[in-house]
Amino acid sequence: MRVTLLQHSSLAVCASAIRTCWQSFDKSDNGGEKDKELIDRVGNKFKHASTLEHLTYTFYIEGISRALLQELARHRMASLSVKSTRYTLKELKKELPFNEDDFKRASKYLVFTDDSRVDRMSIKALENLRLVLNEGISNDKAKYCLPESYKSELTWSINARSLQNFLTLRSDKSALWEIRNLSHAVYSAIPDDHKYLFTINEVI
Amino acid sequence: MRVTLLQHSSLAVCASAIRTCWQSFDKSDNGGEKDKELIDRVGNKFKHASTLEHLTYTFYIEGISRALLQELARHRMASLSVKSTRYTLKELKKELPFNEDDFKRASKYLVFTDDSRVDRMSIKALENLRLVLNEGISNDKAKYCLPESYKSELTWSINARSLQNFLTLRSDKSALWEIRNLSHAVYSAIPDDHKYLFTINEVI
Amino acid sequence: MRVTLLQHSSLAVCASAIRTCWQSFDKSDNGGEKDKELIDRVGNKFKHASTLEHLTYTFYIEGISRALLQELARHRMASLSVKSTRYTLKELKKELPFNEDDFKRASKYLVFTDDSRVDRMSIKALENLRLVLNEGISNDKAKYCLPESYKSELTWSINARSLQNFLTLRSDKSALWEIRNLSHAVYSAIPDDHKYLFTINEVI
Amino acid sequence: MRVTLLQHSSLAVCASAIRTCWQSFDKSDNGGEKDKELIDRVGNKFKHASTLEHLTYTFYIEGISRALLQELARHRMASLSVKSTRYTLKELKKELPFNEDDFKRASKYLVFTDDSRVDRMSIKALENLRLVLNEGISNDKAKYCLPESYKSELTWSINARSLQNFLTLRSDKSALWEIRNLSHAVYSAIPDDHKYLFTINEVI
Repeated sequence: MRVTLLQHSSLAVCASAIRTCWQSFDKSDNGGEKDKELIDRVGNKFKHASTLEHLTYTFYIEGISRALLQELARHRMASLSVKSTRYTLKELKKELPFNEDDFKRASKYLVFTDDSRVDRMSIKALENLRLVLNEGISNDKAKYCLPESYKSELTWSINARSLQNFLTLRSDKSALWEIRNLSHAVYSAIPDDHKYLFTINEVI
Repeated sequence: MRVTLLQHSSLAVCASAIRTCWQSFDKSDNGGEKDKELIDRVGNKFKHASTLEHLTYTFYIEGISRALLQELARHRMASLSVKSTRYTLKELKKELPFNEDDFKRASKYLVFTDDSRVDRMSIKALENLRLVLNEGISNDKAKYCLPESYKSELTWSINARSLQNFLTLRSDKSALWEIRNLSHAVYSAIPDDHKYLFTINEVI
Repeated sequence: MRVTLLQHSSLAVCASAIRTCWQSFDKSDNGGEKDKELIDRVGNKFKHASTLEHLTYTFYIEGISRALLQELARHRMASLSVKSTRYTLKELKKELPFNEDDFKRASKYLVFTDDSRVDRMSIKALENLRLVLNEGISNDKAKYCLPESYKSELTWSINARSLQNFLTLRSDKSALWEIRNLSHAVYSAIPDDHKYLFTINEVI
Repeated sequence: MRVTLLQHSSLAVCASAIRTCWQSFDKSDNGGEKDKELIDRVGNKFKHASTLEHLTYTFYIEGISRALLQELARHRMASLSVKSTRYTLKELKKELPFNEDDFKRASKYLVFTDDSRVDRMSIKALENLRLVLNEGISNDKAKYCLPESYKSELTWSINARSLQNFLTLRSDKSALWEIRNLSHAVYSAIPDDHKYLFTINEVI
């Protein structure tokens, strides 16, 4: 799994948005400590959460499973552009056969759990999918035997308010292990001076 | 695939909402032809689309694949409560072994394409998943070798504005065959006197 | 101010939506105490808040000021159809002149505060607006001298999740007095057996 | 009225998001003509509109009336932080009295129509509001006699998909004159190389 921050908006602009309400622009320190304290106070403590929506982040997320993607897509206050299995299965078609111990080669296509019995079954499904593709069956049908461990990637844009919700819910110990890992990887990719706005549960 | 309408709001209330703007309540015929024409004129022709949001529908959708669910969840102006694989895989655990021609028994768990080569691969994956579950591996790991043909079901609430968007995009010939089928099944489940608000592309 | 509930969806359907996740339909008591406890537990305590979105309410709200409407419209997870000043100012045009003590007659058009000095200024503005309309000036211009105390009404559809947010924020003692009153009036109009899902701050 | 662009995201990132779907990153020209054509083709022509949501803009909007603000706030796929009348009326308190021909001085506080009869009534209401404030009445009550021509300002963040909807609906000849003007001012403030994604109706 790899998370890369592609773009983000500015703390100074968010602070300025908040200062619109009270016309307190002259108190700004241009995204410095006073502005940062203001964002936290108004957006978090005063629950004027819409002010946090001026902060948006775009991440590129690689190497997550389609199982995780099912959960990620439920966070509806976000924009997802996802690698399409309908259009990209052809890369698998060209591979040589996989036997069930080809963990290394298969890891290009699959997310592994820490249980090799499950992972072997994923590799078998991957090989079966490869065979089906090579019989000339269209992606729109072949994808039905895809295992949920199949790797995907996406560009994900989300504002700070929705990201707070994501990180809180998905770093919780009741969350699926892979999305809990994702929540930590996303947190790490947040710009350092923005991190204070977010809290994350430590994985136990 | 089966779509059942669980509840829906009333055309009379939607028409009344529109009549709020011009205070033309005295022209209402209580959800009759005049009200229906008004909703179409204001919501569709005049593009005052927010008025269509007063109409909400709750459907129960059964027998769709997790592949389709990936696409359905991208319609973010809707509320989904989905059968959880994390909690419901135990039903599979109790099954007898599947051989790859057990189409009938496996159809309880899998959505089949019209290509038996793909479907056989799905049945193999189903059997592998069954084995893994019977080794006592937790659902949170076992689900990684689940094939995307695995059946799911959900309760889906959506307003008329968002449903128009769904039906238009997903009944298009460029859409995935299964979601195209779903768009038709949902359209059929809409109350007959509401259908005039929606258009659907015929599947070719 | 008057709030009337026009339609609402069913607790039984919301509970059924939640039971989709665990396929526990057989434990339902059809919207009774077990279902109600489930909604509260999953939607509120477990923070699976999207399940509360299956519950929608449509209210008719009368006799609120345009000042309040400014705040109400900031709750974006809701659908508003509002009486249009662009189309309905003609009712004022036909009135006889108002003098600044015509509190009773003016109360058809204005929300009064408990300070008669402010209210007299509102009546003066109302009379000035009436004069302008009678000079044949179009509503699109005349409305610029409308006082914010001018009464409006709307049809408002909102789901339970967003309504929780509204009631919590707007019944707080830091909220504007009129929207605090609205929050209480809305709470009163919620069906009695749904009230347990919402909390409201007492006005001091 | 003045509209200033405070920040915006990048065409290159939006194009990259689209290229995620087909993994066609190697065809990018880093936000150049090929990328721009791609965004228009996929986001507009193919109606894959969610891809346009990766583009966000933050504007500072000054000198619009509270009448316009009522309409602007109905565009719910946007984030607004607005100058608060509850907190900023004190600036008016310090002014010398206005007589009804003080157009120049009053223009600091009021949006004028092109009809001086309306504007004089707005100035009278402004003076009445000033008097009320000087009697020590709290802003939360005094604001009820504020005319809708009263000037406001806000920070407004919106993505390209929602902005397309805004510009199309609000530059239409059926729109209120002031919001029609705003739609043109916003369009002018969009970065030149982003303008091709938007269409605007010419005001007649």
